[in-house]
Amino acid sequence: METVSENKCFGGVQGVYRHKSTVTNCDMTFGLFLPEEAKDGPVPLLWFLSGLTCTHENAMTKAGAQAWCAEQGIAIVFPDTSPRGDDVADDENYDLGKGAGFYVNATQDPWAPHYQMWDYIAEELPAFLGANFSVDLERQAISGHSMGGHGALTLAMNLPGRFRSVSAFAPICNPTASDWGRKQLTAYLGADEAAWAKHDASLMMRDTGFDGPVLVDTGTADQFYELLRPEALSQAVAERRQQATLRLQPGYDHSYFFISTFMEEHVSFHAEALYRD
Amino acid sequence: METVSENKCFGGVQGVYRHKSTVTNCDMTFGLFLPEEAKDGPVPLLWFLSGLTCTHENAMTKAGAQAWCAEQGIAIVFPDTSPRGDDVADDENYDLGKGAGFYVNATQDPWAPHYQMWDYIAEELPAFLGANFSVDLERQAISGHSMGGHGALTLAMNLPGRFRSVSAFAPICNPTASDWGRKQLTAYLGADEAAWAKHDASLMMRDTGFDGPVLVDTGTADQFYELLRPEALSQAVAERRQQATLRLQPGYDHSYFFISTFMEEHVSFHAEALYRD
Repeated sequence: METVSENKCFGGVQGVYRHKSTVTNCDMTFGLFLPEEAKDGPVPLLWFLSGLTCTHENAMTKAGAQAWCAEQGIAIVFPDTSPRGDDVADDENYDLGKGAGFYVNATQDPWAPHYQMWDYIAEELPAFLGANFSVDLERQAISGHSMGGHGALTLAMNLPGRFRSVSAFAPICNPTASDWGRKQLTAYLGADEAAWAKHDASLMMRDTGFDGPVLVDTGTADQFYELLRPEALSQAVAERRQQATLRLQPGYDHSYFFISTFMEEHVSFHAEALYRD
Repeated sequence: METVSENKCFGGVQGVYRHKSTVTNCDMTFGLFLPEEAKDGPVPLLWFLSGLTCTHENAMTKAGAQAWCAEQGIAIVFPDTSPRGDDVADDENYDLGKGAGFYVNATQDPWAPHYQMWDYIAEELPAFLGANFSVDLERQAISGHSMGGHGALTLAMNLPGRFRSVSAFAPICNPTASDWGRKQLTAYLGADEAAWAKHDASLMMRDTGFDGPVLVDTGTADQFYELLRPEALSQAVAERRQQATLRLQPGYDHSYFFISTFMEEHVSFHAEALYRD
């Protein structure tokens, strides 16, 4: 592991680290904030999955999460959104390839050799964090923005028992019925839509649900509202009687100004679940 | 005036605006956060001057100030750090020319035609804000980081009665005795050091002081510590018996992770002065 940088922040440390990933077959970079309490023993871990075009850095510098995670004594990890490197396949569009891994394991060429973001987030990175940092893998929660909100919701529902709570900011709720989804799922997973279902939060909500609290915020002025399809998730949540708080926030858009506004409430929401018992 | 963007943020609006500046003779861009209370009437105005290499954007997206300004009902403006445009003189080094205006009125070629940042911050931009936004110019305070901390301190002391309080994060405290200062003051103002004195916070503190509270934070692990010369300002403050709080924060460096950590306290400090009477 290479330490790219470490900065003291809210009494803890905001680090950036690079490691060789076996599943994505390239070097991966992530941000990890450890609160001061991590010096004394493992602390709960909150995942924050970022959206299209982002690296590990955007949310780490713009979401304002460290203030609240420090207050609650929680670590927060900011993974990258795709494999990286010169030999990694890419696309000229912002919404496919690098910066757009969509948190799936690609089965199709040219993506399959590196685009294994599901396994990276679900298996390799948590094991790496548990082995190298003072985080308690028995107490994990997950959140994310846009494509990362899609990732958070689908990972949480596909890995029962892993995360105590899940939240999302402006998530892509129904990618199998959206231009933010159909193209990417076709490219990464192939044309057989049966392989897509586990990667659609609305379909997963209908089929499986989540054994814990769910919090989702979406802005009414989100410029990508039609692509996010919050109505599909709302309907599935209601049909399932899923414990959930779904909020439409008046006037907010898709930006980090929206995320930072509601970050305190999301961290508090997760803290309540992480410190229960 | 051109509205570049407006995003709802903590109940208010984070805007970016562009206007034609007469004193810098080019288009200037600034960020302005207006809290919700600005809809009901003029609100106090906090200035945040940024450091070397920054535009209006860095502090606006990374300093986490909007959360606290919203809580206090205060507007915060993020000006650019230099004139901009293809016909504006520049230097190949990061610490001279664009992104490095040093908050002075240049008298020397090739800088004089555009590098009039003192007048821009002291005169033109406040008048523009007062005419176009719901801000109360009778209640102003000023802060800044690094080169912008230098700007905040020197403006506050040179304009008695303008600002009720002044604070700084890792300011350049003594530019006339630092490599962050001597080169730039020579370039912009010429070799006669008599013209430099008003642009040195430690010299101004010794000569004039500030009629109000002063708060300065510097990290003990600041990688530019020697260039900042906090000891010069500390000595001048003590000699003058200036009302001030000067803090050395253990382990913090020069980054926005340092700034965001202490932003809440700086905004609260200014709010106390802005809401007095």
